[in-house]
Amino acid sequence: MLRTEWIARRHGHANVSQMYYARQGLITEEVAYVAHRENLEPELVRSEVARGRLIIPANTNHPNLEPMGIGIATRCKVNANIGASPNASNLGEEVAKLELAVKYGADTVMDLSTGGGDLDAIRSAIIQASPVPIGTVPMYQALEAVHGNVEKLTPEHILDVIEKHAKQGVDYMTIHAGILIEHLPLTQGRLTGIVSRGGGILARWMLAHHKQNPLYTHFDEIINIFKKYDVSFSLGDSLRPGCQHDASDAAQFAELKTLGELTRRAWTHDVQVMVEGPGHVPMHQIEMNVRKQMQECSEAPFYVLGPLVTDIAPGYDHITSAIGAALAGWYGTAMLCYVTPKEHLGLPNAEDVRTGLIAYKIAAHAADIARGRPGARDRDDELSRARYNFDWNRQFELSLDPERAREYHDETLPADIYKSAEFCSMCGPKFCPMQTKIDSQALSELEAALKPQPVAAQE
Amino acid sequence: MLRTEWIARRHGHANVSQMYYARQGLITEEVAYVAHRENLEPELVRSEVARGRLIIPANTNHPNLEPMGIGIATRCKVNANIGASPNASNLGEEVAKLELAVKYGADTVMDLSTGGGDLDAIRSAIIQASPVPIGTVPMYQALEAVHGNVEKLTPEHILDVIEKHAKQGVDYMTIHAGILIEHLPLTQGRLTGIVSRGGGILARWMLAHHKQNPLYTHFDEIINIFKKYDVSFSLGDSLRPGCQHDASDAAQFAELKTLGELTRRAWTHDVQVMVEGPGHVPMHQIEMNVRKQMQECSEAPFYVLGPLVTDIAPGYDHITSAIGAALAGWYGTAMLCYVTPKEHLGLPNAEDVRTGLIAYKIAAHAADIARGRPGARDRDDELSRARYNFDWNRQFELSLDPERAREYHDETLPADIYKSAEFCSMCGPKFCPMQTKIDSQALSELEAALKPQPVAAQE
Repeated sequence: MLRTEWIARRHGHANVSQMYYARQGLITEEVAYVAHRENLEPELVRSEVARGRLIIPANTNHPNLEPMGIGIATRCKVNANIGASPNASNLGEEVAKLELAVKYGADTVMDLSTGGGDLDAIRSAIIQASPVPIGTVPMYQALEAVHGNVEKLTPEHILDVIEKHAKQGVDYMTIHAGILIEHLPLTQGRLTGIVSRGGGILARWMLAHHKQNPLYTHFDEIINIFKKYDVSFSLGDSLRPGCQHDASDAAQFAELKTLGELTRRAWTHDVQVMVEGPGHVPMHQIEMNVRKQMQECSEAPFYVLGPLVTDIAPGYDHITSAIGAALAGWYGTAMLCYVTPKEHLGLPNAEDVRTGLIAYKIAAHAADIARGRPGARDRDDELSRARYNFDWNRQFELSLDPERAREYHDETLPADIYKSAEFCSMCGPKFCPMQTKIDSQALSELEAALKPQPVAAQE
Repeated sequence: MLRTEWIARRHGHANVSQMYYARQGLITEEVAYVAHRENLEPELVRSEVARGRLIIPANTNHPNLEPMGIGIATRCKVNANIGASPNASNLGEEVAKLELAVKYGADTVMDLSTGGGDLDAIRSAIIQASPVPIGTVPMYQALEAVHGNVEKLTPEHILDVIEKHAKQGVDYMTIHAGILIEHLPLTQGRLTGIVSRGGGILARWMLAHHKQNPLYTHFDEIINIFKKYDVSFSLGDSLRPGCQHDASDAAQFAELKTLGELTRRAWTHDVQVMVEGPGHVPMHQIEMNVRKQMQECSEAPFYVLGPLVTDIAPGYDHITSAIGAALAGWYGTAMLCYVTPKEHLGLPNAEDVRTGLIAYKIAAHAADIARGRPGARDRDDELSRARYNFDWNRQFELSLDPERAREYHDETLPADIYKSAEFCSMCGPKFCPMQTKIDSQALSELEAALKPQPVAAQE
């Protein structure tokens, strides 16, 4: 497998994180791989990893991983969530969803299984099948261990699950360590309270015991696990807003401050970190949210869920959130967690995964163009040329979803002959504006004709 | 009909435009109607109409119209295009499409028919059936009059069609008067040349005759027609970019400058104007485009088509363009012309019209929230409350597309009992984060417990 030998050479090191090696000045194979993929200098990638502004989630027990860089220096990334839920899905289905997500361009995949079979076996199968980094949220399985009885959770339950996931090869984990007991009263004015699943569990635990968040009090132990396997933190935002009304409030930003402290604490141990973000945020607050995260978290990569820019369109939240995601990416967010059309309504099916992913590939790509990344627009230009030249097949090939583009075109004009026709059914044969090809000869003649006549020289 | 008496009282006036009356200081019934709809002071609406920053397209031969305000002071509007094409659609279908568009919230509808039956009869039926303003592009029918032979077009052909549409009750018309012969050489470096259908026709005409654009040279005659019926100009942007590469180029902005001149010329005759805009524009150029239009066109309402923020997603251009449209609306664009998933691929069907419209209602609504329009977020808040309280039916009701939201929810949990269940199939019964309801009693106790103990007074 791709990384087998790379990893073997690190055997016995107390810390095997990419950040550790980068800070030693070493260009690991993973760094070189990412540099090649992103068309960046390896030294730039190394220095960004050392600085904490770029992560390469790459568990040493995930040897078939094709390393992926997540940071402001690299292309904007997209994550897809999959996972079995208590009465739906199984191992085979989850691996199929993984393959579907990778096919449509997911840069990382999170397995959010909460039931529906042997969670460990499903996770293991997903990791073995996945060329992209796999993330998990260990709180879910920890809760399963106490049969859903939140109060019975102990730090040991959680740490056990974290260590198990790390051993299995999970590349990054959502750790909800930033929600503190003193933040809870700040949620009182909210319309939708706490909308993070993991965060909600911890809030109930803290309220029941009047004790601090165990992930916060045991953060150093998690760091110690993570550096053994090079698991990256994805610091969870338990207090992210669940609606426009709750966006950018005191609860959200109090937690963000704590996430910044935890980021720096992990960095002192050379452990990689990204920071999760909202959620539901109106457009005019997105730039401020991104800048604030950079400031509070010392520019650790930001990984946002949308955000949705309105709450009134259930059934279309891949769109409400792709708008926010495109903006977030443009302002410098490193990774966008997709949202499917089923968000708030039900478990997504294969078609929803496809639709959600394409919406997010659009957002990430538009962000790359807007940030002026070198070469970001090349594919757009190539597709536009094919469009102008009525090369329909080439146009489909260059599309984010070639099958869908072809299907829509063929709905009205299926015959092969129309693949070189100078029109489609939208405007018909006589009105296609792309037919307005003005040849340069005609334009040169026109320019000559338009030139002002020379004025007779004065005597 | 709603406007029958209002219009009767204006009989015999040489100019019946809303702008004319507004400049006389009169608050017309249309102005009052718009003020009521928009929750604005009638005097504000009147002064904005007089100033040219708000238009109320309201042909005196469209008495069943429910007047609609389009401008920066009012809510962001959405237009849907319908229309028969040469080998698809007929009168009944077009009226059905109109009704569908209105059902899903179109604020205006453009009939872009280019064939497929008796164009005059279709247009007439649409106007009679429509409570929203109807727009047309007279160039298409003018070209039909000369059997598609561009060179044979004369100014008279075009003026005849314009007058016919005006008499029929068309509320606004796209008039491609801004593309000048001297602009044509500026398109030479483009990837996709001219992508406006009307603009392409005029470009070919100008090249064939080496003469100036007849809509430009006969602009005053069009003004004279428009003021008799109160038709509003929708000044067409023939040189809008057709891809990211061509955005914001010299050709586009040369035409925009001319559109500004024409705007002010129409205003000297008290004729209402809005100005059409792109098209395909990367995110980072959208604000500049909106500001530039305001500057060049003295703040006449801007009416943009998208813009698409990437070219690589045919089949999903309702999404690529809703991102741009949301941004444009936020920056102050008055109306957004929808784009359907079939854009660039084929004629949209009913489902495409629905999807395109909802994508644009999302963009316009998100823009209203971001602009901070009073009350813009009320519906979001109400839906969020219903969501938090697991009132599924209320949540569906408040959605932009209630049927779609219900359908998606019911796909996995159709039974009636689940309409009050405290979960959906996404997270299942045990993991729904909305269940994390922390009661205020518990929070008060926590706050008391967290309070620092009073320090004993010093002796």
